[in-house]
Amino acid sequence: MDEIKGRILEKINNPEELKKVKLEELPVVCDDLRNFIIDVVSTNPGHFGASLGVVELTVALHYVYNTPHDLLVWDVGHQAYGHKILTGRRQTFITNRKYKGLSGFPKRTESEYDVFGVGHASTSISAALGMAVASKIKGEKDRKIVAVIGDGAMTGGMAFEALNNAGAGKSDILVILNDNNMAIDPSVGGFSQYLLNISKSHSYNRFKKDVWEGLGKLDGFGQKTRRFLQKNQHALKNIILKENNLFEAFDFRYFGPVDGHDIVYLTKVLKDLKDIPGPKLLHVITKKGKGFKQAEINQTKFHAPGLFDKVTGEIYSCDCPIDKAPKFQNVFGETLVELAEKNKKIVGITPAMPTGCSMNLMIEKMPDRAFDVGIAEQHAVTFSAGLATQGMVPFCNIYSTFMQRAYDQIIHDVALQKLHVVFCLDRGGLVGEDGPTHHGVFDISYMRLVPNMIISAPMDEIDLRNLMYTAQLDDIAQPFSIRYPRGCGIKPDWKKPFEKIEIGKGRVLSEGEDIAILTIGKSGIFAQRAVESLSGEGVSAAHYDMRFVKPLDEEILTQVFKKFKTIITVEDGTVKGGFGSAVLEFMAENGFSNQIKIMGIPDRFIEHGTPEDLYKECGIDAKGIKTSVLEILKKS
Amino acid sequence: MDEIKGRILEKINNPEELKKVKLEELPVVCDDLRNFIIDVVSTNPGHFGASLGVVELTVALHYVYNTPHDLLVWDVGHQAYGHKILTGRRQTFITNRKYKGLSGFPKRTESEYDVFGVGHASTSISAALGMAVASKIKGEKDRKIVAVIGDGAMTGGMAFEALNNAGAGKSDILVILNDNNMAIDPSVGGFSQYLLNISKSHSYNRFKKDVWEGLGKLDGFGQKTRRFLQKNQHALKNIILKENNLFEAFDFRYFGPVDGHDIVYLTKVLKDLKDIPGPKLLHVITKKGKGFKQAEINQTKFHAPGLFDKVTGEIYSCDCPIDKAPKFQNVFGETLVELAEKNKKIVGITPAMPTGCSMNLMIEKMPDRAFDVGIAEQHAVTFSAGLATQGMVPFCNIYSTFMQRAYDQIIHDVALQKLHVVFCLDRGGLVGEDGPTHHGVFDISYMRLVPNMIISAPMDEIDLRNLMYTAQLDDIAQPFSIRYPRGCGIKPDWKKPFEKIEIGKGRVLSEGEDIAILTIGKSGIFAQRAVESLSGEGVSAAHYDMRFVKPLDEEILTQVFKKFKTIITVEDGTVKGGFGSAVLEFMAENGFSNQIKIMGIPDRFIEHGTPEDLYKECGIDAKGIKTSVLEILKKS
Repeated sequence: MDEIKGRILEKINNPEELKKVKLEELPVVCDDLRNFIIDVVSTNPGHFGASLGVVELTVALHYVYNTPHDLLVWDVGHQAYGHKILTGRRQTFITNRKYKGLSGFPKRTESEYDVFGVGHASTSISAALGMAVASKIKGEKDRKIVAVIGDGAMTGGMAFEALNNAGAGKSDILVILNDNNMAIDPSVGGFSQYLLNISKSHSYNRFKKDVWEGLGKLDGFGQKTRRFLQKNQHALKNIILKENNLFEAFDFRYFGPVDGHDIVYLTKVLKDLKDIPGPKLLHVITKKGKGFKQAEINQTKFHAPGLFDKVTGEIYSCDCPIDKAPKFQNVFGETLVELAEKNKKIVGITPAMPTGCSMNLMIEKMPDRAFDVGIAEQHAVTFSAGLATQGMVPFCNIYSTFMQRAYDQIIHDVALQKLHVVFCLDRGGLVGEDGPTHHGVFDISYMRLVPNMIISAPMDEIDLRNLMYTAQLDDIAQPFSIRYPRGCGIKPDWKKPFEKIEIGKGRVLSEGEDIAILTIGKSGIFAQRAVESLSGEGVSAAHYDMRFVKPLDEEILTQVFKKFKTIITVEDGTVKGGFGSAVLEFMAENGFSNQIKIMGIPDRFIEHGTPEDLYKECGIDAKGIKTSVLEILKKS
Repeated sequence: MDEIKGRILEKINNPEELKKVKLEELPVVCDDLRNFIIDVVSTNPGHFGASLGVVELTVALHYVYNTPHDLLVWDVGHQAYGHKILTGRRQTFITNRKYKGLSGFPKRTESEYDVFGVGHASTSISAALGMAVASKIKGEKDRKIVAVIGDGAMTGGMAFEALNNAGAGKSDILVILNDNNMAIDPSVGGFSQYLLNISKSHSYNRFKKDVWEGLGKLDGFGQKTRRFLQKNQHALKNIILKENNLFEAFDFRYFGPVDGHDIVYLTKVLKDLKDIPGPKLLHVITKKGKGFKQAEINQTKFHAPGLFDKVTGEIYSCDCPIDKAPKFQNVFGETLVELAEKNKKIVGITPAMPTGCSMNLMIEKMPDRAFDVGIAEQHAVTFSAGLATQGMVPFCNIYSTFMQRAYDQIIHDVALQKLHVVFCLDRGGLVGEDGPTHHGVFDISYMRLVPNMIISAPMDEIDLRNLMYTAQLDDIAQPFSIRYPRGCGIKPDWKKPFEKIEIGKGRVLSEGEDIAILTIGKSGIFAQRAVESLSGEGVSAAHYDMRFVKPLDEEILTQVFKKFKTIITVEDGTVKGGFGSAVLEFMAENGFSNQIKIMGIPDRFIEHGTPEDLYKECGIDAKGIKTSVLEILKKS
């Protein structure tokens, strides 16, 4: 542990102590902080590049602002490791993302310095504006509010909604645009190009050299700046804003771009901006992975690299354990390319997750037919709808948790018009270490109430492949959703010839006499193990993999309800309104009165940890299912 | 009907026939079309001002473009009456918004000219981009794609997501920004001010007089323009764009602003833009209500005025029928002011619906504590979350159907952090004439799966009032949703002293012996009538108004499940995953096996019509409930 002791960092337990460091020593603090992050994250996997990129910004913010009285809102939160380490969590940082340990994201219940919980992108300006307005209503004079948002997150529509509102409201907030030209993959879209143009343009240097230094000479970066700016608003606008009208259009005062790795300069700029009233945006240029060579070179891989060698930068293999069965995402990516080669109507859409969902494979092979549309789930879905109206078959891949962002578009733009869009929901179920902001546990329930929607969930890779094949066939002609889990499957030999799956048909995996277990998706794997183990104890459980939540296989259900007194349903989604409820609705409609136990994610937010820990906690791993079966049989 | 026969309009049955009209006669077509709309809508209520404002634009678009081969996407669709009338629906326009008649919005199944169904805002650019990309993939050379979007709808984040993607994609689309500085209420936010500045600025006239006329002289507005623009892109940018960098930042080529009521000029401009490649935006200034004086003066009232006198502009009273019981929205608006006067923590948030939800009352009285944030549901919710972190109690009022837009924010920003935000979902249930895009029938189900959420629905005005009172009390400290219907209540004498309602407690409205009817919200009114009528036929039905969907009143439920063999649940929401499913889940968890019938909105999209027609169609009006009870009792 010697290495992770910083020379100065080890004496800093909170921002108060940071403020005692001399300005000229801040570069050392930054070095220490960077090394600390590299040391811990290389052996304790987490998000990496984003936090390295904002080391200087983080130090500068806590140096200049009076946190937690001043409110610092981090967008997404991938980048907040430095913030955690500087705000009382250096000692516990080794538990980052571990079960019962620190969260990988800012979290209100974890620290008073985490003023807004995050995980999904583009929320920070809205939240900060809410705080600023509250502060104004309460008549607070001295509370400052800062939102830090990446250029990727800025493409999320919500950020623009917030800019529009904040600009008009004249609230005293500072938005820091952390521009590294990256989301997880490189940023895309007109806006990203626009920012690139600014940072490359002549005005960059002119701003830095002339304007800021000029202001400095005027009044030494102090209180007078404020008065000067107030008196000479128009004149200054003309000097500073020049080509940066986008933010000005929203009535924000734009400053920048500035070098986000010059800690001394950054501190100076922040100090000065602190007293300028109204909505302000500071454009800071940073490099994702800054200070760790391999992370700077391969920014996408080092977004969350898993274990790696902190000297060589070698990323240790994260192959899947069972005989190298593939990740579900790769089955998606490879299968999509196979299908798209045969069916020219297929197009691919991902909102900023080409690597994460493996659509990069199609983007590489067929760049004219596969699209990364930016962090823009709403647009991704309605863009898909537009494509479908013209006879294309869009595969719109959005993580289950992020699909929540496009819920209205699913209903209003796709389902209502009965358009043939294939929704692929990656990361369905408990995702593990990313925790409650990212668990994909609501999708079965929220999809189930959408008319015209086919809802399926494969138990394994071959099923995923065949569901994708089935979903793109011409006779489908309606929205079709396929949700599958994060991580690895169980079938190393998954590349089998395609087989059409009959819509709304499940399958029996084990015949049995004592009880019936109905599962959907990955839960079927746990159930299979439970059934095997139960069999060893003389319990004969039948197991049905239903494959479809909508339409339900009423033939199987009728048989099951007639044969078995007691039925268990298992899903890796919430017990409220999900697959189990669908089975209950079938029961009520058809006049059955069996005893049903619904197993799934309980009606509360599940924290982070390994998927194993979490499935166990929810009682829906193999052991949990077995225990439940035995309990029920004992009672009845 | 003499008056509504146009002089030229009556000869125009489709855009082909419009194209035969001489350019100089187009003003007459516009007059005719405007008069036709005034005639029909004054006696057959619908949206009014928006369509009047785009009469010239509509005529020009169908005159210049080859619809339906060229694809014309209307955002929201309030403004598409002229489009409908010119595209084969003049004769049937009298059925607009009537049961089984024309839809009030563009609708794919209604006409090949309606290429994208709409109702909610901000979808048009995404859809148009999808169409443009499909067209390119299919190798079509001659298909043009146009999106028409209002300045209000442009503040919806999704529109920016689409701009960002479209700008980078270099697709050949034309976005027409229909700028009337209005949503239903006046537009708000920095962006709206920005547009106003453009239209007032010197560059407006310069653009019109110099640039366009200059181009005209160069080549007579023909093919050469295109070549000229391609060769001299940079030079032209500097002339045309000047202060209009917002769209340029997204890599759109900006043209305008132009006068949207000069039909001849508009036609000229559109013809010319038609052949300019890449993403383009034409900024058109229009007046909502144009040509009908009272509608121009009072634009919000004439958005959808109901019946009015087409000569005097007098709006006929639309008071509620039963002894002037109030609209639910007014109970909300007035109660909010009462509560906010006492509880200084209360703030109000509406995304562009101050008049529609009656938050204008609080905005007028307490402008510092009530906020119209623009068409921005996502931001509205997370802004509320930010306010709540600082101890405020936000009442965030969003129509049930639009709350779908903020689903992720409800889960991720409010519920996960257990923030005390009060969600008021106006227009819950079937809304009537606005139809399937606007029915608020999913909210009970999609809210039910959100952990930490209290879900309530008042049966009448007094209950709404008391639920609002209860929701703002300090001991709540968690998200609280209240959904209530569109239209009028039943209690003229509703302004009673506040009473706290116990969370999760229902009430018995009728004792009975033969069957139990459990209702939530407005359905209770229908059930009461059914119970009365059943009583006349010797059937003794018990009726419970559950008030809360979550938490459920388990005490009442236990009594009911013990006493009654058969139970009916009724809700004006989808039968999938809603209140009825919650009751089924209770049954399964508690080992009951009663016979349950779930009544509600069936699992399909419900078309438009009067609420009465629609409730009847769904079988959940008083008569439908009675019939179901009798059928069930006959069977059992």
